[in-house]
Amino acid sequence: MTLHQAQALDAADPLARYRDLFDLPDGIIYLDGNSLGALPKSVPAAIADATTRQWGDRLIRSWNEGWIDAPQRLGARIAPLVGSAGHEVIVGDSTSTHLFKLIVAALRTNPRRHTVVSERGNFPTDLHVAEGAVACVPGARLHAVPREDLASAIDEDTALVMLTHVHFKTADRFDMAAWTKTAHDAGALILWDLSHSVGAVPLDLTAANADMAVGCTYKYLNGGPGAPAFVYVADRHQAALANPISGWMGHAAPFAFEDGYRPADGMKRWLVGTPPILSMAALDAALGVWREIDQSDIAAKSAQLFTILADAGDALGLACVSPRDPARRGSHISFRHPHAYAITQALIARGVIGDFRDPDILRLGLTPLYLSHEDVWRAGDILTDVMTSGAWQDPAYSERLAVT
Amino acid sequence: MTLHQAQALDAADPLARYRDLFDLPDGIIYLDGNSLGALPKSVPAAIADATTRQWGDRLIRSWNEGWIDAPQRLGARIAPLVGSAGHEVIVGDSTSTHLFKLIVAALRTNPRRHTVVSERGNFPTDLHVAEGAVACVPGARLHAVPREDLASAIDEDTALVMLTHVHFKTADRFDMAAWTKTAHDAGALILWDLSHSVGAVPLDLTAANADMAVGCTYKYLNGGPGAPAFVYVADRHQAALANPISGWMGHAAPFAFEDGYRPADGMKRWLVGTPPILSMAALDAALGVWREIDQSDIAAKSAQLFTILADAGDALGLACVSPRDPARRGSHISFRHPHAYAITQALIARGVIGDFRDPDILRLGLTPLYLSHEDVWRAGDILTDVMTSGAWQDPAYSERLAVT
Repeated sequence: MTLHQAQALDAADPLARYRDLFDLPDGIIYLDGNSLGALPKSVPAAIADATTRQWGDRLIRSWNEGWIDAPQRLGARIAPLVGSAGHEVIVGDSTSTHLFKLIVAALRTNPRRHTVVSERGNFPTDLHVAEGAVACVPGARLHAVPREDLASAIDEDTALVMLTHVHFKTADRFDMAAWTKTAHDAGALILWDLSHSVGAVPLDLTAANADMAVGCTYKYLNGGPGAPAFVYVADRHQAALANPISGWMGHAAPFAFEDGYRPADGMKRWLVGTPPILSMAALDAALGVWREIDQSDIAAKSAQLFTILADAGDALGLACVSPRDPARRGSHISFRHPHAYAITQALIARGVIGDFRDPDILRLGLTPLYLSHEDVWRAGDILTDVMTSGAWQDPAYSERLAVT
Repeated sequence: MTLHQAQALDAADPLARYRDLFDLPDGIIYLDGNSLGALPKSVPAAIADATTRQWGDRLIRSWNEGWIDAPQRLGARIAPLVGSAGHEVIVGDSTSTHLFKLIVAALRTNPRRHTVVSERGNFPTDLHVAEGAVACVPGARLHAVPREDLASAIDEDTALVMLTHVHFKTADRFDMAAWTKTAHDAGALILWDLSHSVGAVPLDLTAANADMAVGCTYKYLNGGPGAPAFVYVADRHQAALANPISGWMGHAAPFAFEDGYRPADGMKRWLVGTPPILSMAALDAALGVWREIDQSDIAAKSAQLFTILADAGDALGLACVSPRDPARRGSHISFRHPHAYAITQALIARGVIGDFRDPDILRLGLTPLYLSHEDVWRAGDILTDVMTSGAWQDPAYSERLAVT
């Protein structure tokens, strides 16, 4: 593709106008929105209002003026992006904490089954938290297997299948409906981690008949660093599943101050403590961007952006580890290279911010809302220059940072 | 006390100058800083910087420019306020989630003991979470008893004594050193909830030989609505206690992306997921206010403010349920009245914001940093007017709000 062709795609791009809703620094091509989404321009004013008016001026009264319902309100805004009903999603805590709650709950609903099946090489926190969760349920265990062994690992002892829909390294995407059916056919529940999916690919939890899901809001949803995560429980399971971290915000009547725990109806029982309202205010504003977005436009543009970088990689002989079929991947592209760390740093030094995933992955996020085809074309051009010039071999690019 | 005497106390008040560090709405006397602390003036700029510069401009690079260490950095700032070493405190998650982690961890370190002893009428989330936590440890149970039966309930089966240092309704304060010794003498660990203590009364976890503690940062520390909570584990226990919610941020090498969980050394293992950075930025700025505060000034002023309202209550024949001895209470005053709800609402309508605690408590918070003696004297005057005029009997004041 030529620069001119990329610019022509931009001219016809139905999502092009959304770029202006984001603040992006000059001179940067940001290919890390899959790790931390860019700042929506609506956010600073929303946070300032939450801080100076809601907190500073209204003080404690704000709990009755919108704060107490924020977890449900934000959940209802995320629901259309995951294909669920509004009352099936709630926001609060981190993805990791939500995973813990759901895994323990799932194991307890079916005590005759003991195994959580997941994938080796899954995002680490999913496996780490599962280790901790199974230790809270007598007899339970985690069985993590390579992807190719998943189907055979799901058996009559499987209580829960826990999968990350889009893989954080490769962008490999599971067929949600098919794997949900596989789990159900074996009598197991399924829990989807949508952290690298929501806002990146079209999702339909209802059509897939999914049981449970969690997801991150600071990646493609642009909710801000450490924005609280969402949790989804299908309506049909809401009464039976119990939150093991039984905090007061999940109580049926938190302000009755009863000694005994009585879970709230619906999704409210998945709350634990007081949610971080200022971080929720940022997320609330960020979600406003998504109101009128057509998910099929996102998918089409993501596919086009991918092709630009995949072609650049092919020309360089780089090993692309992401699926070529758009229906089988998320919205990032990853290359495997023994010097991926130094290449990532060389790109960052040239204003192309992607990231490195240990031990050998250069990962480049493709966020259709605020990246133009020209941006991605220029990133490919800079990648080509870094590789052909050998610029990445500068020893400075091999110095490891704490967070990679 | 006369208004003139209150003003004279203000003129001599070493803390008077701190009031100017807070934004408080005109016409409001805010006696609910024990529920949600007032807005420090330094916070809006700190949040704006975290949003527009750190997130918007520096984007993912900010993780290496201060974000990744924020939980430890904030912990070290809280440490002097609780009398611990800086490396014994870390910030993240909610108080409720921290309680869950510590209770499970404490039960597991001593599997020959099975009981968590706590107080009936403790802040509800402490008991609710304990219910959930004991269900994660085979054979464990919660034994909640009235305060007068606590000493006899602590026995050779007690793994953990969990107490809230200052009671959320009455302001009754436990003798931390004495009860820690009682727990230790019985071979048990002790976990202190400092939510209504930190920033309200002098604390010395080290001198008391306390084992574990948690605390809220959005009350007397003014960290903002839902600001993340802190957790303390004494140095001597840090290696032995394990976080049951084993998320990637508590891993020894989160960015090595290992399948297996290896807990980080020190307090970092108590982290779970990605912390809410924007809420942490507000807390960080709010903690700056405390750098030069002398805790004994806080205690002396709190005692003086209490006396003003206690005298007003006595004159009205109101039943004060808070201890008269300053050494035995926190920094709020509570009155019991069958119509406490309506009285609270009548006060709010007159610009005196306190709160109601179900079923019959009028609770008034005394925050020495930003309340003057005159403020509290005027609040007492308005309380006197509301009670003697019968203004609280207006039926409008009995309409219940969702959050009380």
